[in-house]
Amino acid sequence: MTDSWWLNPCKAVNATAHEQALARQQQLTKPAGSLGQLEALAVRLAGLQGQVKPSVDHLWIVIFAGDHGVVAEGVSAFPQAVTGQMLQNFVTGGAAISVLARQLEAQLEVVDLGTVTPSLDLPGVRHLNIGAGTANFVHGPAMTQSQGQLALQAGRDSAHRALAGGAQLFIGGEMGIGNTTAASALACALLDCQVTDLTGPGTGLNAAGVSHKVAVIERALALHAGQRGDALQTLFNLGGFEIAALVGAYLACAQEGMVVLVDGFICSVAALVAVRLNPACREWLVFGHRGAEPGHRHVLHSLDAQPLLELGLRLGEGSGAALAVPLLRLACALHGQMATFAEAAVADRPA
Amino acid sequence: MTDSWWLNPCKAVNATAHEQALARQQQLTKPAGSLGQLEALAVRLAGLQGQVKPSVDHLWIVIFAGDHGVVAEGVSAFPQAVTGQMLQNFVTGGAAISVLARQLEAQLEVVDLGTVTPSLDLPGVRHLNIGAGTANFVHGPAMTQSQGQLALQAGRDSAHRALAGGAQLFIGGEMGIGNTTAASALACALLDCQVTDLTGPGTGLNAAGVSHKVAVIERALALHAGQRGDALQTLFNLGGFEIAALVGAYLACAQEGMVVLVDGFICSVAALVAVRLNPACREWLVFGHRGAEPGHRHVLHSLDAQPLLELGLRLGEGSGAALAVPLLRLACALHGQMATFAEAAVADRPA
Repeated sequence: MTDSWWLNPCKAVNATAHEQALARQQQLTKPAGSLGQLEALAVRLAGLQGQVKPSVDHLWIVIFAGDHGVVAEGVSAFPQAVTGQMLQNFVTGGAAISVLARQLEAQLEVVDLGTVTPSLDLPGVRHLNIGAGTANFVHGPAMTQSQGQLALQAGRDSAHRALAGGAQLFIGGEMGIGNTTAASALACALLDCQVTDLTGPGTGLNAAGVSHKVAVIERALALHAGQRGDALQTLFNLGGFEIAALVGAYLACAQEGMVVLVDGFICSVAALVAVRLNPACREWLVFGHRGAEPGHRHVLHSLDAQPLLELGLRLGEGSGAALAVPLLRLACALHGQMATFAEAAVADRPA
Repeated sequence: MTDSWWLNPCKAVNATAHEQALARQQQLTKPAGSLGQLEALAVRLAGLQGQVKPSVDHLWIVIFAGDHGVVAEGVSAFPQAVTGQMLQNFVTGGAAISVLARQLEAQLEVVDLGTVTPSLDLPGVRHLNIGAGTANFVHGPAMTQSQGQLALQAGRDSAHRALAGGAQLFIGGEMGIGNTTAASALACALLDCQVTDLTGPGTGLNAAGVSHKVAVIERALALHAGQRGDALQTLFNLGGFEIAALVGAYLACAQEGMVVLVDGFICSVAALVAVRLNPACREWLVFGHRGAEPGHRHVLHSLDAQPLLELGLRLGEGSGAALAVPLLRLACALHGQMATFAEAAVADRPA
């Protein structure tokens, strides 16, 4: 495959809509700036959507799932079979993201890129069978070029389905036992940070478990050090199928002009890869929350991201982004529906 | 009036429901603790409501408005007529809280305790006419005992109407030009903090304006220093009608067993007064957000409160609490609707 679609230009922000929205914000019946982050958020959404009064009523949530060869090194508190079991839970409605999607009236899609559970065939899940999980990246690349490009394309395909379905906001979630190890390794390679700064307990390792995880990541970084300058190859060396799908989805959203709400640590690492591949996509990424995984703070800082929530979350599945959706919707409602000083005959401050 | 109703006992938390909810949380299909603050929140609401699966679908929002004699000292960026003008804006639907109440399907009540605008008679507003604003507290008490007790009772009456209307969650908002000055003065008297730590720009003072506000508050504190140990008299000396109404409402909610979601700086100061008067009410107060007013951090700390949001808000009107409502609702939905490990046949971590 030679079509590097991920390098295609991202959609430009609509400067006129942005300016008009900014002017409108300043006329609403409240002290200027008193709605804090929600004011800038509404104005930003206006510029992205090209509408003075933006809207994020129509929400698309996709969960990308995949297994990780590096779990053989003993880096996760949960057994690997949980990835497949949770796929079932997503579609039968019992997982956190299933509940949130219902409450938010979102369309929820579940994409299995490749797990260790053989021949899964679950109604409501798209099984792509890119591989039986990635390869163990302490011994070689996590995925082949061909697998990596299939995973990127799977993310792009979901973004295109979201667009075709009328979505105004895209959330990508992830599920994959061991994927904080992949995300930490990837972030270390891209940010040139201390491994200890970017490695945490994931779903529940103790201190000894975290130390072991650090050692595993250090071995992997040494093995793949020669390709650190190449973000795409680094993704294929150290990432996961679901992480590559997130990268592809984010880039496709930015190219097509759909706002993305980024979830936690793993999704933020995918966002970092996307921005390294195609920096203009950064405009399209809104960050939902700062999670409990210690490395998240560093990754967000490197992206100059100011997330909306900080609730100590560390679940993944897109849950933190989903929890931030009402803030985006209320920011849009306030921006679109509040009266101006003139309309309400309220005195603005003396000049 | 000799009936000190505000000292009556608060409703006790239901320990059984609390324990059962805690046990349920630990069986849901997610790593333990991975929903962060939302887990403890759902469990807490269960104990307060006496239901293993709590609900905050039915929401009551009341705006208490009043004017402040201390505005004569030049402590606000906005003209005092705005209090009355905003009452109109609340009921005609153009204010921030009006938009939020609509989006959240809340019942919105507007109570005018007493403004400087003579003979206001707005459809949809309860005009109580306790006074034409408070007296200037640099010269004497802001309100008489009788006025103060009427304001407390006005808050209690609103809480009782909320309960009668089936509300499961109570938000008190406030509007009153000059009321950050009253709130700062009150907080200083109760917390014995530096005035500069608890005094900020309010709706938009510059640095010189803040310095002047500090000086005004210092004069008031000196005048009323002899009564600092008496929280009720301090409220009457330095508070506002709307602040006293919030105090009364919070205490009545705690007595009747309705969860309160506290808004920003001014409401948090009212919560501090309520807790000083009747400490057991603290259990019933959930804090919505940390606002931009610098003193808010100190007041929250003194109440050992960990608010859900921090978005740089400084509007009041109950808006920050309203913005946090979806988080409470989603916490309840997750707690009530997620599958357990057993129900979903998902492996919990190995013991």
